Amino acid sequence: MTMTDGLGSRSWAVPGGGIPFPSQPDEPELTGADVLCVLNTGDEPAELRLTVYYADQDPVGPYRISVGARRIRHVRFNDLIDPEAIRLGRPFGWVAESQVPVVVQMTRQVTRIPGALALCSVIAFAGS
Amino acid sequence: MTMTDGLGSRSWAVPGGGIPFPSQPDEPELTGADVLCVLNTGDEPAELRLTVYYADQDPVGPYRISVGARRIRHVRFNDLIDPEAIRLGRPFGWVAESQVPVVVQMTRQVTRIPGALALCSVIAFAGS
Amino acid sequence: MTMTDGLGSRSWAVPGGGIPFPSQPDEPELTGADVLCVLNTGDEPAELRLTVYYADQDPVGPYRISVGARRIRHVRFNDLIDPEAIRLGRPFGWVAESQVPVVVQMTRQVTRIPGALALCSVIAFAGS
Amino acid sequence: MTMTDGLGSRSWAVPGGGIPFPSQPDEPELTGADVLCVLNTGDEPAELRLTVYYADQDPVGPYRISVGARRIRHVRFNDLIDPEAIRLGRPFGWVAESQVPVVVQMTRQVTRIPGALALCSVIAFAGS
Repeated sequence: MTMTDGLGSRSWAVPGGGIPFPSQPDEPELTGADVLCVLNTGDEPAELRLTVYYADQDPVGPYRISVGARRIRHVRFNDLIDPEAIRLGRPFGWVAESQVPVVVQMTRQVTRIPGALALCSVIAFAGS
Repeated sequence: MTMTDGLGSRSWAVPGGGIPFPSQPDEPELTGADVLCVLNTGDEPAELRLTVYYADQDPVGPYRISVGARRIRHVRFNDLIDPEAIRLGRPFGWVAESQVPVVVQMTRQVTRIPGALALCSVIAFAGS
Repeated sequence: MTMTDGLGSRSWAVPGGGIPFPSQPDEPELTGADVLCVLNTGDEPAELRLTVYYADQDPVGPYRISVGARRIRHVRFNDLIDPEAIRLGRPFGWVAESQVPVVVQMTRQVTRIPGALALCSVIAFAGS
Repeated sequence: MTMTDGLGSRSWAVPGGGIPFPSQPDEPELTGADVLCVLNTGDEPAELRLTVYYADQDPVGPYRISVGARRIRHVRFNDLIDPEAIRLGRPFGWVAESQVPVVVQMTRQVTRIPGALALCSVIAFAGS
C-alpha cells in the first residue's frame, strides 16, 4: 500500500485573527468566534502545529491539532487552551504547519450587536 | 473545429462548509445555504465530481454536477441528495474535480437570527 | 520614457455573481449591488473587456470598462447597460480581460432584509 | 546568527478599499473601518510602504507602517494621516510593499445601519 499525498500545502497563514468580543451569551452556537477549518484529503493523519502571533509579545505555540486521513476538522480559536488560552478581543495572526498537505480556511462569526449577525471567511495564504 | 480549454483548474477545495441551521422558514430565497458556484468558460461541458468530507466518517460522493460549455451553475448544497442529503448544521468540507478547467467559488447565506442576514464567500483553493 | 507594467494579471474570473434583489429603495448607497473593483498600478490605461456568463444562455459581452494609469475604478454591475442590462436577482459569473496587468476584486452588498446589511468580497481568480 | 525570511510576499494589492460612512458614532469599536492586517513571521522588522490609489487623482503615499519581527499589526485606514488622511466614503485601492516577505489581509466592518453589522475580508493579492 502506498500513501497518497492530499490536496494543498504544508503551511498556511492568516494575519487578521481576533476572537470577537463581546458576543451573545445565551446561545453557544451564536458565540462570536474565529474558526480554523482544515481539510485533509490524504491517506495519512495531519498533525498541525499552530503558532499564534501578537502585536506586542513573542509568538505562542505550538497548539497541536490532529486531522484524520480523509477528514475535516473545524476548531474554534476560543477553544484552544494549550499552551495558553487566547484573550478575547485581542488582535492576532497565525501560521499553521502540517507534515502533509492540507487546505486551511478561517471563518469568523460576530454577534456583538444583539439581533445582528456578521460573517467573513478567507482561504488562508498558502506558503510553500 | 478545435475545443479550447477554459479558464481555471481541474480541482478545487473548501475546508469550511456547513449548511446554516436553523434559518428563516417562510421565504425560500432566504433559506440559509452554502452555494457552490461554477464557471465553465470552455467549449466543452464540465462534468464535476464533488466529494464531501466529514469530521467523523468517511467521505461521501461523488455528487455529479454538469455545467454546460460557456455556462455557470450555482448549486445549493441543501439540494444535493444523491448519493445522500447533507445534514443541516453539520460541519463538512469538499473537493470538486472536473475533467476540464473551471473556476469554483463558495458563498454562504445565514439567516438564523430573525431580521439579520450574513454572507461570506471564498474562491475555492485551486489544486493542480 | 518607458511604460512599466503594473501589478497583477490580464484575466480574472468570478463564478458567483448576482445583483441582490429586492433591496432598500430609499437610499441609493444602500442598494443591493455586486461591485467590480479594478486597480491599475501601471503607466498605461487598462481597457477591460467584461464577459457575463449565465446558466441558461450564451455569454453576453464585451462590456467595456476603462481604468486610467495609476487609478482604481469601482463599477456596480447594476450600472452596466451596454450591450445589455443585467437582470436583478439572476445568477451569473464573469471574466474580465485587460491588455495590461490589473488586480480585480468583487464586493457584494445585500440589503434585502430591512434593517440588516450583509457584505462579502473576494479577490477574483487570476488567470494567465 | 542568520536572518531567516518569513512567510509570504513583498508586494500586496487590494482594489476594493473604502472607509464605510456613516457609522455608529457612540462606540469606537463599532466604527466602520477598513483594517490592514500584516503578519511578519521573519526575524527582521518589516518596513511597509503603502500607496493609496484613487479613481480621479494621482496616488498618495507612501504611508509607512512598521511591523516587528515575529509580530502582527492591524491598522485601521481611518487612522492613517501621514502624508494625508483618507476621506470617508471615498473609493480607493492600495498596494503595500515590504523589504521582507509578509502576509497581508484586509477586513472591513460596516455599521452604517443602526443595529446591523456587516463584515468582509480578503487575503490581499500577492505580487512578486
